[in-house]
Amino acid sequence: MEERWKTAAGLDPDAPIGVFDSGIGGLTVAREIIRQIPGERLIYFGDTARLPYGTKTKDTVLRYSRQIIRFLRTQKVKAIVIACNTASACALNEVRRELDIPIIGVIYAGARVAAEATHNGKVGVIATEATIRSGVYAEEICRIRPDVEVIGKPCPLFVPLVEEGLFHDSVTDEIASRYLADLKKKYIDTLVMGCTHYPLIRSTLRRVMGEDVTLVNPAYETALELKGLLQELNLLRPETEDGDGVEKYRFFVSDRAESMTRFAKAILPREVKDTVQINIEEY
Amino acid sequence: MEERWKTAAGLDPDAPIGVFDSGIGGLTVAREIIRQIPGERLIYFGDTARLPYGTKTKDTVLRYSRQIIRFLRTQKVKAIVIACNTASACALNEVRRELDIPIIGVIYAGARVAAEATHNGKVGVIATEATIRSGVYAEEICRIRPDVEVIGKPCPLFVPLVEEGLFHDSVTDEIASRYLADLKKKYIDTLVMGCTHYPLIRSTLRRVMGEDVTLVNPAYETALELKGLLQELNLLRPETEDGDGVEKYRFFVSDRAESMTRFAKAILPREVKDTVQINIEEY
Repeated sequence: MEERWKTAAGLDPDAPIGVFDSGIGGLTVAREIIRQIPGERLIYFGDTARLPYGTKTKDTVLRYSRQIIRFLRTQKVKAIVIACNTASACALNEVRRELDIPIIGVIYAGARVAAEATHNGKVGVIATEATIRSGVYAEEICRIRPDVEVIGKPCPLFVPLVEEGLFHDSVTDEIASRYLADLKKKYIDTLVMGCTHYPLIRSTLRRVMGEDVTLVNPAYETALELKGLLQELNLLRPETEDGDGVEKYRFFVSDRAESMTRFAKAILPREVKDTVQINIEEY
Repeated sequence: MEERWKTAAGLDPDAPIGVFDSGIGGLTVAREIIRQIPGERLIYFGDTARLPYGTKTKDTVLRYSRQIIRFLRTQKVKAIVIACNTASACALNEVRRELDIPIIGVIYAGARVAAEATHNGKVGVIATEATIRSGVYAEEICRIRPDVEVIGKPCPLFVPLVEEGLFHDSVTDEIASRYLADLKKKYIDTLVMGCTHYPLIRSTLRRVMGEDVTLVNPAYETALELKGLLQELNLLRPETEDGDGVEKYRFFVSDRAESMTRFAKAILPREVKDTVQINIEEY
């Protein structure tokens, strides 16, 4: 934890947590936060007008992330989670220096758990092409355990397959078998699901990789990291404070709210009422 | 043809044709132009930093299209082809009013040929969700033949499958069978490939739909429309004028040139040398 956050004494434990992503994938991170720390209020922003981030330059993703953070601060959030691998890779270090509230990304926690989990020192990372190309998981894992060999594999069809709802489908099985063949040949014993969409096809990945490979879900690990951080800062919101008339979970997007609402309903444990469209370029 | 273009007497037949798309799909249109009017020089722009257009609002796509047209005019093009269904739907009518050089989109020619081709009056249109939702093909086809029933089907997985290079693949076959099942049940006799990527899986579509269904390729029809237009305006460039040291086909993108070059090499009939990355937001 950064020292200066401890001095952020003015923060209100009752304030919501801000979570953002380039689109809807970050909802898997929101889902883990809701499961792990059910007392918390949440503001989610999905930058659906400008997705995907994976094909854009670092400068552009950093500029977008700063705009979103300015929007989230208008909602008085007490902490921010960058629930997007690309934005975590491109923006976290810069915006962390600029902020006086806690902010975390999804990469560090996943990398740490993968480094701890591997026995044979062979870790596979599956992610979008942009994340694999950035080398950020390999970098973080090797910073913790330099002896680990990290083998990256981009899986560009997984996101569209998930967005088509083909979570359990013969086509997803077939594509997963092809993508994971090389990682199986290298006898990895740990696999990082390095894209927020991938936990939704976890059962397929499990079946293809077999029971002996540890699947690391950075969304889950990030929610745990957030919980620990809020505890240390005395910023946890008690579970009993519900029913005060305030909407507990609120969802914002930059373009076309319907698909977001539909997807959120499919993967979140409780009813998502309205998703609000805002003009993010004004922030 | 618009009357005022006839007065565009200052245009140079030796000047290139400008072609643009949100990304690489428009290369199928470029390919047809190269085949149909091989004497022409070509400037292609793919807005790879801001794709996909299909999820964006009309205003945004119009703004992007105007920027790209300003860039193409710095290259002294004599005519412009919007080789993108979404941009054709969102921007063509507006920018046509603003320009003093000929500009065409990909929708009109495809719609016209489909309206002429159908015998039983049942036309299927496959495209991205944005294009189907816009209803633009149905509108154009029914303007020409109001008795035609147009049945639209969004096929969101086709673009990622094509971009993964799975042109001839069991997975593409399986997905195509599912997407096209409803259209087969309705006994359409004509199918419009309403997305620039789809002609690359033409053989799969042909196999699934059977020999009796006419497949309409708007890229091909648009190249023919362009040829007729240039003939009328006395702007056709003779085939014999090659080898003058000028690069005949030039390719520009807004982000990451490599994937464009790779894709262009796979589908264009002649060598693509360099793809140049420009900052489109400066135009």
